[in-house]
Amino acid sequence: MFHLLDLIGTMAFAMSGALTAMHKKLDPFGVFIIAFVTAVGGGTLRDVLIGRTPVGWMKDLQYVYVITFGFFLAILFRKKFDRLRTSLFLFDTIGLGVFTLIGLEKGISIGLHPIICIALGTMTACFGGVIRDILCTEIPTIFRREIYATICILGGAVFFILKKMNLEDDLLYLITSLVIIIVRLMAVKYKWYLKAFDHK
Amino acid sequence: MFHLLDLIGTMAFAMSGALTAMHKKLDPFGVFIIAFVTAVGGGTLRDVLIGRTPVGWMKDLQYVYVITFGFFLAILFRKKFDRLRTSLFLFDTIGLGVFTLIGLEKGISIGLHPIICIALGTMTACFGGVIRDILCTEIPTIFRREIYATICILGGAVFFILKKMNLEDDLLYLITSLVIIIVRLMAVKYKWYLKAFDHK
Amino acid sequence: MFHLLDLIGTMAFAMSGALTAMHKKLDPFGVFIIAFVTAVGGGTLRDVLIGRTPVGWMKDLQYVYVITFGFFLAILFRKKFDRLRTSLFLFDTIGLGVFTLIGLEKGISIGLHPIICIALGTMTACFGGVIRDILCTEIPTIFRREIYATICILGGAVFFILKKMNLEDDLLYLITSLVIIIVRLMAVKYKWYLKAFDHK
Repeated sequence: MFHLLDLIGTMAFAMSGALTAMHKKLDPFGVFIIAFVTAVGGGTLRDVLIGRTPVGWMKDLQYVYVITFGFFLAILFRKKFDRLRTSLFLFDTIGLGVFTLIGLEKGISIGLHPIICIALGTMTACFGGVIRDILCTEIPTIFRREIYATICILGGAVFFILKKMNLEDDLLYLITSLVIIIVRLMAVKYKWYLKAFDHK
Repeated sequence: MFHLLDLIGTMAFAMSGALTAMHKKLDPFGVFIIAFVTAVGGGTLRDVLIGRTPVGWMKDLQYVYVITFGFFLAILFRKKFDRLRTSLFLFDTIGLGVFTLIGLEKGISIGLHPIICIALGTMTACFGGVIRDILCTEIPTIFRREIYATICILGGAVFFILKKMNLEDDLLYLITSLVIIIVRLMAVKYKWYLKAFDHK
Repeated sequence: MFHLLDLIGTMAFAMSGALTAMHKKLDPFGVFIIAFVTAVGGGTLRDVLIGRTPVGWMKDLQYVYVITFGFFLAILFRKKFDRLRTSLFLFDTIGLGVFTLIGLEKGISIGLHPIICIALGTMTACFGGVIRDILCTEIPTIFRREIYATICILGGAVFFILKKMNLEDDLLYLITSLVIIIVRLMAVKYKWYLKAFDHK
């Protein structure tokens, strides 16, 4: 179940990457690479920083298949994208929740401090998008709009508070991902965002 | 012989990096760094992702020497560059072939799946140029023009097909690099490229 | 003492990152990430390239605390920044010296060649700023202005010359950092810089 959600999130991230890249008029190879990097970039950075190599997607081809599938979906439906926006947004939000959990867990499994684990969770969920934006030479969206990353940090905090209360693992995972998913949906609906500083 | 071709390719990549950086009006240090990163960036990323550290160029100073040499060559001949374009292009194409092979081999040596090996080969050959373009804040060339990366993928596919046929190693290497080199030459001569998507 | 200087340098780097990010109108999360990356980016890249993982800041929370403190300082004093410029510049210069030394030492400790150690020292001191600039989509400052990196290379050369003369470790560290700090101060005062090439 968890693994299935991981694959759904991966596909959603790949599609969002592919759509951004097509907007930038990249060629098919460029579009595929951006899709790939958006989908696995966060987890790859996490694996490299904690020394878990070869990185995840090299050892499990399912990611490659799912990304390739998302890539073709994005190409096929690129003109009907407006109608698909809602489903893609939902999948993307699932990805946000699941990826944060995976990052948290990897950190815990090698005995890192909760603060660092939360950083790893946020990185797993958000950094693919950062690399996507850098490859397209834009200032990363999550540094300017939407409280995407802040939600992952919140989810991580909830996770460790519940863990302290000795909650069962299954329930712990369920609640954390629900918190992330619900807050994200509310944030987009009510247009919550962080204000930039009035620097002079 | 193979090692010599590797060094020639490294030098060509360093020169192409240096020339790009000089066009961007970087100072000599910046030009050197871009030359260095263009030459070793792909192999470095590959080594980091598969956990082969310290990365290659740290353990063999020949790369540093060859890059430094290429850097000075690029500076000396920067005004006569048009006349050198053909030799540089040829060296660069040799690099493309050799680097792809090195990446393929590293992947095989740690038992990764052929698809991942081909990804590693393409990364080794192409990612130096991607980092070069990002450091110069341009959208990477290989995402928009020339079928550079596609040729590496093709070369990788040929490699594994021939390998399945139990071809001898030497012949396997020779044919793969020749395929990459010849297709590249033809691609540039006949202006083959991938069309960007007509996104709306 | 050395560790204290390391933390001071880290804080100064975090503040310089935060100030750059606020100029770019990033939101608070973006500002924090840029501050963090500017402070630990160089050391992180070094650790990843030599395979020392999990990377440094994951194993010692003091860095996280010091960066967070620098982040809040930068926000609080963002409007009085002109008056603080001198102290920040001084701290930043201390960071330059200390970070170079740390990089040199890590290289020596795993038996790398002096040239590679100097590269690691320079990387530790300068690469945080490079990542900061890339995340803000600017061509890295150190490739175009100020002889920042050149000073680290000079410091590294002095280090190995003195080491050859069998100087005591404490003295070796002191002199190297003083050379870096003094040359930096003079370079800024007398406006030393590297000239870009007259490319055509």
